Amino acid sequence: MADQAIINEVGLRDGLQNQPVTVDTDTKARLARLLVDAGMRYLEPVSFVSPKAIPQMADAAALTPLLPQGDHLHYTALIPNLKGYQLAKEAGYPTVALVLSTTDSFNERNLRMSLEQAAQSCETIIAAAREDGIATRTYISGAFACPYDGPVPVSLPQQLAERMFAAGSNEVAIADTIGAGNPQQMKAIMTPLIRDFGAERFYVHLHDTRGLAAAMAWEAADLGVRKFDASVGGLGGCPFAPGATGNMATEDLVYLLESCGLDTGINIEGLREAVALAAEATQRPLGGRILDWMASQEKQGKTPCLW
Amino acid sequence: MADQAIINEVGLRDGLQNQPVTVDTDTKARLARLLVDAGMRYLEPVSFVSPKAIPQMADAAALTPLLPQGDHLHYTALIPNLKGYQLAKEAGYPTVALVLSTTDSFNERNLRMSLEQAAQSCETIIAAAREDGIATRTYISGAFACPYDGPVPVSLPQQLAERMFAAGSNEVAIADTIGAGNPQQMKAIMTPLIRDFGAERFYVHLHDTRGLAAAMAWEAADLGVRKFDASVGGLGGCPFAPGATGNMATEDLVYLLESCGLDTGINIEGLREAVALAAEATQRPLGGRILDWMASQEKQGKTPCLW
Repeated sequence: MADQAIINEVGLRDGLQNQPVTVDTDTKARLARLLVDAGMRYLEPVSFVSPKAIPQMADAAALTPLLPQGDHLHYTALIPNLKGYQLAKEAGYPTVALVLSTTDSFNERNLRMSLEQAAQSCETIIAAAREDGIATRTYISGAFACPYDGPVPVSLPQQLAERMFAAGSNEVAIADTIGAGNPQQMKAIMTPLIRDFGAERFYVHLHDTRGLAAAMAWEAADLGVRKFDASVGGLGGCPFAPGATGNMATEDLVYLLESCGLDTGINIEGLREAVALAAEATQRPLGGRILDWMASQEKQGKTPCLW
Repeated sequence: MADQAIINEVGLRDGLQNQPVTVDTDTKARLARLLVDAGMRYLEPVSFVSPKAIPQMADAAALTPLLPQGDHLHYTALIPNLKGYQLAKEAGYPTVALVLSTTDSFNERNLRMSLEQAAQSCETIIAAAREDGIATRTYISGAFACPYDGPVPVSLPQQLAERMFAAGSNEVAIADTIGAGNPQQMKAIMTPLIRDFGAERFYVHLHDTRGLAAAMAWEAADLGVRKFDASVGGLGGCPFAPGATGNMATEDLVYLLESCGLDTGINIEGLREAVALAAEATQRPLGGRILDWMASQEKQGKTPCLW
């Protein structure tokens, strides 16, 4: 049996949160259904943030009961603060995703907190979640570069990851929020973290802004990481991170990992339907690089043979 | 001082050989000038092939004296057979690139020879070149997959590389001619070859057909490879390999390698002029992923800050 990899679909949250078009709740639920039908088992469908700050996520509580149900499905809600945590808990999420950016500037824009305040807020939420039996995944956002302050030394995400593990975070996600990292940096950040905490406690979250997401994902996989975020069709970007174009497309990540012998359980053909719905709903062209190739093959009258 | 990497620009040859538009000799010379001005020191500007088979390369002998000259510039001519070798020698090329595909089918289409015939032809040419003091680089074409027979076992390019080194080839290029490889395969092919022959004797030649070229280039670099082919703007494809869309774009490779701390000596801003000329000359849109990002930054009124 092949080594298994987990892809956590963040298109409904990170993907939709900064689209000019607000997608209605029923369409979001239909998109979740298509994703689950394609084999997706891990999804981050909502964030419990201020609807004034991010109106696209205002239906988080309403969407939750419409999501496909099943013991094999694992849902995470993103939360910016303790208030968001309470809402996620009320909505019944078994896992919450916290956000801690690497610089004061980025935390100020994201959370209106300094880095130290944000770290303490995460510690408070993690403590509450542990009491409530809710799992925590803390995102080290801007782990490779800050949209305001530029490149970040590798020691900074490492220290923040250590601090969040010390606080009791179950997992840490190393996030290249603006897609400005490179695979050498991935190696430098992850090697000591994996040595100290084990690869199984890490997620990697990538944006393909400058074309290096696949190289970074491969480096992480090669180091033993088996948990990745991705966004269907490459939908996405961070509303508070200028230049943060699309997340790494789920279909590109599936193609990369499967071609390298990892089992994702996800069917690229099934994802195409989800990409089509996401593109229609957001009124923008979407689709990862592997879909371009598949389309070019079909245009030539061939059946794309992926593996 | 940073570790140095060599990028061999193959846009004028691999890039132009299958374009529907035949680019005139003076424009090719202007393109070579722009590339050299951008810092390129290694170029494969021509192939000495039948003008009936590839009319785009019919001006190989005429282009040669028009290329920028200088002791720091290293030119290679691609040759399919002994006749091509003689023409390259007459034209004064110090290095020739030979082609050996991994399957009978691919060699038949490329060279009208079986695999064994093609291997013997390479051995004959290498022997002649050694007598003449001309360096040889043998391309193992379709090293990851054959356009006709599908995926290729890693032992096959390894055996062919060994055979070509045994015949006296100075360098071997491992070529993913149709862009169907993956970084795990790169690791599996290259690890024993580098152990046995040293990383310095290898080139890697990639096509970004399915979006994995950067991941494969990174894996090769991580294993110690420091010599890569690339094509300005991603121009290219192999005329006898269906589905072989563009080569890995030179600018994307420069961005990858430089961001990972390798010194290519090449200026991306300078490459943009070359991309613009290549796009104009071939009447098609061109440009790697990093240029898309730079353009999007500029559209927002920002100066793209690459590093």
